[in-house]
Amino acid sequence: MRGFGMYSVDNVGWIEKDRPECGPLDAIIRPTIIAPCSSDIHVAHGGSGPKENVILGHEAVGIVDEVGSYVRRFKPGDLVAVPCVTPNWLSRGVQNFRSFSHDQGPSGSFKFVGQKDGVMAEYFHVNQADPNLAHIHPGVAPEAALMTVDMMSTGFHGVELADVGIGEKVVVLGIGPVGLMAIAAAALRGASQIIAVGTRPAAVRVAHEYGASDIISYHDGPLDEQVKAMTRGKGVHKVIVAGGGPEAFAQAIRMTRPNGVISNVNFFDISDKIAITPLDWGLGMGDKDIRGSFCPGGGKRIQRLINMIEYGRIDPTRMISHRFHGFDAIPEAFALMDQKAPDLIKPVVYLD
Amino acid sequence: MRGFGMYSVDNVGWIEKDRPECGPLDAIIRPTIIAPCSSDIHVAHGGSGPKENVILGHEAVGIVDEVGSYVRRFKPGDLVAVPCVTPNWLSRGVQNFRSFSHDQGPSGSFKFVGQKDGVMAEYFHVNQADPNLAHIHPGVAPEAALMTVDMMSTGFHGVELADVGIGEKVVVLGIGPVGLMAIAAAALRGASQIIAVGTRPAAVRVAHEYGASDIISYHDGPLDEQVKAMTRGKGVHKVIVAGGGPEAFAQAIRMTRPNGVISNVNFFDISDKIAITPLDWGLGMGDKDIRGSFCPGGGKRIQRLINMIEYGRIDPTRMISHRFHGFDAIPEAFALMDQKAPDLIKPVVYLD
Amino acid sequence: MRGFGMYSVDNVGWIEKDRPECGPLDAIIRPTIIAPCSSDIHVAHGGSGPKENVILGHEAVGIVDEVGSYVRRFKPGDLVAVPCVTPNWLSRGVQNFRSFSHDQGPSGSFKFVGQKDGVMAEYFHVNQADPNLAHIHPGVAPEAALMTVDMMSTGFHGVELADVGIGEKVVVLGIGPVGLMAIAAAALRGASQIIAVGTRPAAVRVAHEYGASDIISYHDGPLDEQVKAMTRGKGVHKVIVAGGGPEAFAQAIRMTRPNGVISNVNFFDISDKIAITPLDWGLGMGDKDIRGSFCPGGGKRIQRLINMIEYGRIDPTRMISHRFHGFDAIPEAFALMDQKAPDLIKPVVYLD
Amino acid sequence: MRGFGMYSVDNVGWIEKDRPECGPLDAIIRPTIIAPCSSDIHVAHGGSGPKENVILGHEAVGIVDEVGSYVRRFKPGDLVAVPCVTPNWLSRGVQNFRSFSHDQGPSGSFKFVGQKDGVMAEYFHVNQADPNLAHIHPGVAPEAALMTVDMMSTGFHGVELADVGIGEKVVVLGIGPVGLMAIAAAALRGASQIIAVGTRPAAVRVAHEYGASDIISYHDGPLDEQVKAMTRGKGVHKVIVAGGGPEAFAQAIRMTRPNGVISNVNFFDISDKIAITPLDWGLGMGDKDIRGSFCPGGGKRIQRLINMIEYGRIDPTRMISHRFHGFDAIPEAFALMDQKAPDLIKPVVYLD
Repeated sequence: MRGFGMYSVDNVGWIEKDRPECGPLDAIIRPTIIAPCSSDIHVAHGGSGPKENVILGHEAVGIVDEVGSYVRRFKPGDLVAVPCVTPNWLSRGVQNFRSFSHDQGPSGSFKFVGQKDGVMAEYFHVNQADPNLAHIHPGVAPEAALMTVDMMSTGFHGVELADVGIGEKVVVLGIGPVGLMAIAAAALRGASQIIAVGTRPAAVRVAHEYGASDIISYHDGPLDEQVKAMTRGKGVHKVIVAGGGPEAFAQAIRMTRPNGVISNVNFFDISDKIAITPLDWGLGMGDKDIRGSFCPGGGKRIQRLINMIEYGRIDPTRMISHRFHGFDAIPEAFALMDQKAPDLIKPVVYLD
Repeated sequence: MRGFGMYSVDNVGWIEKDRPECGPLDAIIRPTIIAPCSSDIHVAHGGSGPKENVILGHEAVGIVDEVGSYVRRFKPGDLVAVPCVTPNWLSRGVQNFRSFSHDQGPSGSFKFVGQKDGVMAEYFHVNQADPNLAHIHPGVAPEAALMTVDMMSTGFHGVELADVGIGEKVVVLGIGPVGLMAIAAAALRGASQIIAVGTRPAAVRVAHEYGASDIISYHDGPLDEQVKAMTRGKGVHKVIVAGGGPEAFAQAIRMTRPNGVISNVNFFDISDKIAITPLDWGLGMGDKDIRGSFCPGGGKRIQRLINMIEYGRIDPTRMISHRFHGFDAIPEAFALMDQKAPDLIKPVVYLD
Repeated sequence: MRGFGMYSVDNVGWIEKDRPECGPLDAIIRPTIIAPCSSDIHVAHGGSGPKENVILGHEAVGIVDEVGSYVRRFKPGDLVAVPCVTPNWLSRGVQNFRSFSHDQGPSGSFKFVGQKDGVMAEYFHVNQADPNLAHIHPGVAPEAALMTVDMMSTGFHGVELADVGIGEKVVVLGIGPVGLMAIAAAALRGASQIIAVGTRPAAVRVAHEYGASDIISYHDGPLDEQVKAMTRGKGVHKVIVAGGGPEAFAQAIRMTRPNGVISNVNFFDISDKIAITPLDWGLGMGDKDIRGSFCPGGGKRIQRLINMIEYGRIDPTRMISHRFHGFDAIPEAFALMDQKAPDLIKPVVYLD
Repeated sequence: MRGFGMYSVDNVGWIEKDRPECGPLDAIIRPTIIAPCSSDIHVAHGGSGPKENVILGHEAVGIVDEVGSYVRRFKPGDLVAVPCVTPNWLSRGVQNFRSFSHDQGPSGSFKFVGQKDGVMAEYFHVNQADPNLAHIHPGVAPEAALMTVDMMSTGFHGVELADVGIGEKVVVLGIGPVGLMAIAAAALRGASQIIAVGTRPAAVRVAHEYGASDIISYHDGPLDEQVKAMTRGKGVHKVIVAGGGPEAFAQAIRMTRPNGVISNVNFFDISDKIAITPLDWGLGMGDKDIRGSFCPGGGKRIQRLINMIEYGRIDPTRMISHRFHGFDAIPEAFALMDQKAPDLIKPVVYLD
């Protein structure tokens, strides 16, 4: 079968591979819509080391093509959303009440691209279909469901991790797709003022639609000073970090009130130097939690997000800025993501 | 000064009293808008015992008329919202991380009517002004702020107490003002399906506006059976009890899934007999929490709710079904509440 | 193979069955020590309906005899503790952050006796060995490890469910093995005063050893009055219900302070009538949570409890009041449990 | 009256001041036992800026000498413990469910030395006596109660902040008095293995008495490597930072498992450079919370800790290594603390 991936660092293209094999608990999916993600780009450029000959992509909806003999909830022909994080539920790492993301080591529940081929292929493999897939109900647009598997799940998680409460003031750093979903989630958790940080015009417009009350820019001075000026000198209760580097992170700590949370769902580079300035952190005693977490895994999570779409609580398709058609359009969509076109938010590719 | 209250059980009218005195930490408020509440009616009919010669009312916004010598945040002339629950912050009962409602014994933080005269008067007393009052920002309608002091705070609290999570399914029992605010809060905490229980047409319409996806009626059979039929036999994750008696409460337990919560913010009568049927409660092991709590107290809570109005997250004035003008209209508004007019949701009285 | 079980209600004895078959994720265990539990007795007398021809028992340690082809962490010959609750980790019911007990419906994670044969046999079956078994480290006595699989896990869970905090006052209803472990756990979570309720002398002595500061009896008047007399009229922060019927439960609510928790890990009968008296429950607004939960499942839980034994934090073998030897002694141990001998706390049977 | 304090940075001695005045909510205390704390030393050397003419000390028990006209719970002659953190309960900053430490800005609830004279005087002032003082019951040694006001409260808080759970593995960095109390608290919250980091022989002995299972030293290589070697390569669930500088902090992150917590109750210097290495922190997604908090305030907290002593759950006096007698001995005790004598853990001075 054919897939789009990386031959080696900075070298992407079509790859020919065997159709993956289906274990007794697993499923083989034929994707119908996929979306490239900035972390695919990151990997392609060597961000997670010198990978070779691996199919990219971890955001897909599709049709179940085959299931293992122990699978009960899914059958060939079912339309499903595939979480980008698919834990091994038989591992010890999921037996806790905080996250299912680290099944067998840090972020071990992330299988696509990292541990096996990704979803930009004619077929791809999903471990443990029963716990990890989610049905797409009739009445929910598949492209909307596609937005749940990473962007919506991760952005919402940032807000849940920050424990945003009724009436709280929130900053969201970054207005890429994850940041936009964090804005929507902050509004959906009852925030009052939501200050988003970013500049790209297309994203700024959608940020307002999702509930941002103010948009500020890195270009207009230190973020913490801008935020304090907008909050009578107090700063905010919660900051969701969905973009920006170490400098913005330091400013995030500075703009957070005591008893607040800095909640990171952003990917840091191994070479980044994140620093906590004691004065900003109450000399170690300021009750400003610094949390950082990974997109939650499993089918139930995605099912609940799909339910939100079904009941009209959110329309994540507002983020879709570019639509491509046909398997052959994958490279173009990927290139668009790589070049960060000015009007880009999120591209999707309809495969059939 | 003049106030509207009860001479004795079932006997209400104008009462002449001295203007209350202001302690050094306290404030005297001249109310500008008040709202009768069903619990005022309850008290007037002897629901909390044989009270005599007490001014009723616990929902007000107004102008600060006088402050004690230790008050720092408020001064005469300030427009304020007055929480219906005003804890004694110097008590031991507030030193916990669950609720500030029980300052010196159960529900001890509720001062109006229960422990002293209420707000339906030319002037009323507020203990500890600094921690207990909230400024109403310019740009927030005072009548909107009035809705925060009990209805919105209590209804939202029911949802917070239930710990409603992203994508969860929720039932709200009752579509009086507290139930309506619980519906709004469920939507604002990210619920997917919200099933409300009630019949009064005016309230049904507003329930839909606040986010109810379905409305069911007590008249159409056992609620748990209706709810299960609407949720593929599973029931819901959370039930907010904002109305209904013991029978509805039993049905609430029955319609809740394991790991769910039944969250009560409803007032039960001393004579009610609440029963838990073991089979409905997993024989004691079903992980269905039964919680019951009181409207949270303090100025910061109300400030945060006012912030939500300021940033356009909710418009609680949709609940206001009747508007009266002038101090002399209080008895009429009270009578309307007492008679439960079919089109009634919430009446308010503008005093000046 | 031979097992001890019930032919029908009130009719127990040896049963001959085929050795169970091992699925690809599963294990077959040869038990080396088992302990009868009062819930086995309950089942034998028809407490969970008219079962027939089922092997009893759900507390065992033993030797792995066979594992399925997908099992990685365990191999034949390993000495293991077997949790009495062994969830299906591939179910949707475990994908939450509150409990893993309800995998496919209420208490669905409890497999032994309820859904298949129990452990009082030459061999028994464990579903999903990797997530569900726990190694017994050298240096931990197998009979100590045996205490973790239900008694210690359930008793500790009652205290965790109650969220017992530093310096809080706690009542434990019942001083059977679960109650004794709740006493130990309350001390191990930092409680100050621990009042236990019970009368049997052997258990009273052990209750003191595990940390009970006071023991009171049902015979000396209403429990809530006794508890209030011992706490300057205030009652306690938390009550763990590990015994007693509906009447004691009502007293438990009464003796709990606002912001407290009544935490039930006791089995109620379908015919029990549990009532909440509004006055005791703050008229529905007293912030007294009523929780009821099931023994947590999975191997990691049991591993952590075994770690506590290994590091000398607790010695659960003080509960073992009777030791029997040989497979043929099972009926005698079972009968002892059934008759509730006065000096009985917990019997164990060494099978080899 | 006479007090011991600092004239200026690095210049301590007796200071003559007027007896403080008592506000209507306040109390004046005559201390009977005080304890110098390393943070007094820190202040004396200019660690919190160039203070002048301020009496030092924030750990005391004593006799109530005078109370304001609104004080109800305390009267002259009462023996009390004085929390080192005494919030202004009328501030907005305490109206949250996470901490009462930041009443009017970061760590604003810390009044002694920072905002007014400390306790090393013939008399000292306590704001808001009713919520902030705690009675010492007969039967509790005053010197034991003295240990609760900072050392025990702070050390226990580190463990509570880390949310140490049943059977978890814990590292405590530092075995000064706060670290020792963190060790005790970890055991009292149900930890299994407790690894403490430190070298001073007197403290090592007491660390074992309080429950440390292992003691390691900074001198034997990177702490994270030592800890991983002791935990089969996995690291621990929780780290309590009660000592060590930025380098040890970085190692703390490294030795923590996913879903773990690094809980800091240590004072960082403005000049310290705390760094988070992305690889150690799961590239921002490792679910390792970094928390830092201040000693909790208020009388109820201290009352609960005293209750633990009363019920024999802990004996904090094992930390007292040096006892001095008489007011005139304060300088000697202070000098001992300043010089960090090798056998020093905690000195106390009996004033009468």
